[in-house]
Amino acid sequence: MLVDFKRPTSHIKYLSSFTSDEWIKLALSNPIDILIDHAHCERKAAGVAIQLMFRYPSEPNLAEVLSPIAREELEHFEKILYFLKDLGHSLESLKPPPYGAELSKNIRKEEPNRMLDSFLIAGLIEARSHERLSLLALNYEDKSFKSLYESLLESEARHFGVYWKLAQTKFSKDQTFKRLEELSEIESAILAETFILPRVHS
Amino acid sequence: MLVDFKRPTSHIKYLSSFTSDEWIKLALSNPIDILIDHAHCERKAAGVAIQLMFRYPSEPNLAEVLSPIAREELEHFEKILYFLKDLGHSLESLKPPPYGAELSKNIRKEEPNRMLDSFLIAGLIEARSHERLSLLALNYEDKSFKSLYESLLESEARHFGVYWKLAQTKFSKDQTFKRLEELSEIESAILAETFILPRVHS
Ligand SMILES: [Fe+2]
Ligand SMILES: [Fe+2]
Ligand SMILES: [Fe+2]
Ligand SMILES: [Fe+2]
Repeated sequence: MLVDFKRPTSHIKYLSSFTSDEWIKLALSNPIDILIDHAHCERKAAGVAIQLMFRYPSEPNLAEVLSPIAREELEHFEKILYFLKDLGHSLESLKPPPYGAELSKNIRKEEPNRMLDSFLIAGLIEARSHERLSLLALNYEDKSFKSLYESLLESEARHFGVYWKLAQTKFSKDQTFKRLEELSEIESAILAETFILPRVHS
Repeated sequence: MLVDFKRPTSHIKYLSSFTSDEWIKLALSNPIDILIDHAHCERKAAGVAIQLMFRYPSEPNLAEVLSPIAREELEHFEKILYFLKDLGHSLESLKPPPYGAELSKNIRKEEPNRMLDSFLIAGLIEARSHERLSLLALNYEDKSFKSLYESLLESEARHFGVYWKLAQTKFSKDQTFKRLEELSEIESAILAETFILPRVHS
């Protein structure tokens, strides 16, 4: 049987590819794995924001936006953690997909490129999370899963915006757009190498 | 002139020493340095909680208490950041005192000792912060500084309690008390080696 998945009517234009039907199918048939993996993603998103605050402790107007993002990701993390517990599950360890590590390899070592790449990659991950959570919210039939993901996805689009604005504030427009295009192609290429386990970024 | 500093009427009994008059004098005459250093301390306290969440991602009932601590420390951090900005200061880098690094050297390498030591040291730092913020709140004459520190100190006592309870939940009473006593002596010894710069933990 051919299934027609629902697709969002709008999306963050900086992503170079849409998620495949295969991923949607895998995610829909493994809701608990996706949920546990997403809890870990929220924790990691908080970790990324905190890590940048530690790497650039005195950078003007950086902690002011990153600290609230970190707090919000931790709120998301706690929300999923209790949702999982209510379902009788716990936050077990899951083998992560290669996505994060592969993306990080593209962060150039020398400053200020390192900072630009870090902002753009953090932003791309937020944008992809937004796309994937939208797909989950649209296609899950279970109301509680649906509304859980609905409640999370707007912040992820907003977080993309924060990182994108940080990049634009501290770097030239040319530099920022050019590098985003490169990294966005890389991000899509990583996802095109299908990872067989059900993960948010597989 | 001999100054009589105000001292709190109650304290967390697990600290093996009281802060010296010298520290109080140094702190009172360097309010901005102490404030900037304290902002960095709040950031680091959030970092410690997050780091433990990353080190033990699937440990039962750990993230449930550490994630809210991390969020609260970030709130404190932001509060001080804006307080500083209102005074026309920014979050400049400050040479940290040896306190944190010296304490960390006492975390044993092998599990589960590593976990126990990490909880106890995180708790001792919270307890010491609570004592020092109490001294600042009591002895500052400026109302805005006074009430800033007053607003922060109770949470630090509560955070001590969270780490202490974590240690007691996961380890035997004997083991926990014995190790706390050792680490508490070490903590006091580190502070006895006076660090000449005005810092929260100098
Ligand atoms: Fe999130
Ligand atoms: Fe996010
Ligand atoms: Fe705090
Ligand atoms: Fe604290």
